Amino acid sequence: MNWHEIDQKAKQWIYEAGERIRQSFQQKLVVEAKSSPNDLVTNIDREVEHFFWENIRKTFPEHSILGEEGSGHELKSLDGIVWIIDPIDGTMNFVHQKRNFCISVAVFADGVGQIGLIYDVVRDEMYHAIRGNGAYLNKTELPPLQKKTIEESIIGLNASWLVENRRIDPAILSPLVKRLRGTRSFGSAALEFAYVAAGKLDGYITMRLAPWDFAAGLILVDEVGGVTTTLDGKPVDLLKKQSIFTANQTIHQQIIEEYIKGKI
Amino acid sequence: MNWHEIDQKAKQWIYEAGERIRQSFQQKLVVEAKSSPNDLVTNIDREVEHFFWENIRKTFPEHSILGEEGSGHELKSLDGIVWIIDPIDGTMNFVHQKRNFCISVAVFADGVGQIGLIYDVVRDEMYHAIRGNGAYLNKTELPPLQKKTIEESIIGLNASWLVENRRIDPAILSPLVKRLRGTRSFGSAALEFAYVAAGKLDGYITMRLAPWDFAAGLILVDEVGGVTTTLDGKPVDLLKKQSIFTANQTIHQQIIEEYIKGKI
Repeated sequence: MNWHEIDQKAKQWIYEAGERIRQSFQQKLVVEAKSSPNDLVTNIDREVEHFFWENIRKTFPEHSILGEEGSGHELKSLDGIVWIIDPIDGTMNFVHQKRNFCISVAVFADGVGQIGLIYDVVRDEMYHAIRGNGAYLNKTELPPLQKKTIEESIIGLNASWLVENRRIDPAILSPLVKRLRGTRSFGSAALEFAYVAAGKLDGYITMRLAPWDFAAGLILVDEVGGVTTTLDGKPVDLLKKQSIFTANQTIHQQIIEEYIKGKI
Repeated sequence: MNWHEIDQKAKQWIYEAGERIRQSFQQKLVVEAKSSPNDLVTNIDREVEHFFWENIRKTFPEHSILGEEGSGHELKSLDGIVWIIDPIDGTMNFVHQKRNFCISVAVFADGVGQIGLIYDVVRDEMYHAIRGNGAYLNKTELPPLQKKTIEESIIGLNASWLVENRRIDPAILSPLVKRLRGTRSFGSAALEFAYVAAGKLDGYITMRLAPWDFAAGLILVDEVGGVTTTLDGKPVDLLKKQSIFTANQTIHQQIIEEYIKGKI
């Protein structure tokens, strides 16, 4: 398989979609709620997913597609080549801030991540990786993640996991938060993965993430020596929603051992 | 007093300081801890404050200066013209991310905010306001803040106030977090104020902020119809550290009444 050719096509479509999204800032958005009042989708999310779907079907008719806005939700296996797409990751930011969102595109072959692309549309920053070839931010290669202690680490973690919620007892993560140098929350899982890959965050924890939110990110993080698992250290499943913990490998195992193991 | 002349000088110095900071990305930073291991300062913070101090002293010798890195810490009153400066707000981000920090400069006259300037160095975004003349992001005027409900609001709030801490019982803010559309945490108080002024966040809550962290921000927020008080609704004091709550006025009073009043 010529991954470089697929990578080039994917990037071309992403840049084109990014331009469409930037132009959409002038128009009035149509915003709807999906599963809850805070689970937003816009006409632009749907249009961008459709744009990818059409291009992929035309250019690579034998590939499968799994996308946030409906493509391939019936997918039962990762056999063959599968594109996993979030047309706009961070839709709430897209609606409220017109920034801090991205396009996330991953290509997997028989369950193995081959291409990971996360494009911050407003900053014009393309985080990209082809398996085994390193990860890049635009034209700059991202260096391997540096050794860190928990005390020196900044983790992406939203406040929602520190108040009563359906996924985790807030008392589990509280002692970790107190020990960290700090936490941040940007509101886009894919961007937070990209920041981990770029060393801007040392980890990112969330209790509920769909494959399209993290598929590209885990390939990027992998290429710089980071580790992605569920919060309790199990391998991730690209076909379901689950908790996710991606981090610098020097703190990943230690945080699971000291704060998570046996508690969730 | 010619505020436009002072504003022009201040902007010129900020852009010049911003260029110095961008150039510093090539050099090795000298990072030290101040009051705690996570309270960082670098040689660049000190150099930039000194640069402002020298320019202000030379150009406006009768003005006073209050700065994060030591200038005017003995200041006992806000009589006359006082510049309140944070050379780098978000030093931890500056060190770890090389983004998401800013220069914050405010000019007060007898305790009344006249000029507020927050410059996101990496995005090249200048948020600026002269009292009574509206607030701007670069050349675009920021519109008055729109009416919001708590359920539609996104608030800047760091996870540290939702775990055991010295300033507030986490149980106080938890019910608010559950009701909000979402929370974010960018790690720079001044930028979070700028985002409130620009409608990208609907509010920002923190339990401990120094005057240089919010002086420029409160002028910006004021110009678009937002409100800034301590978390329990008292007027802010520009000469001490305190809790801070800045928000869209449609939610500010309501949040204090329903979640804070009588509890802190």
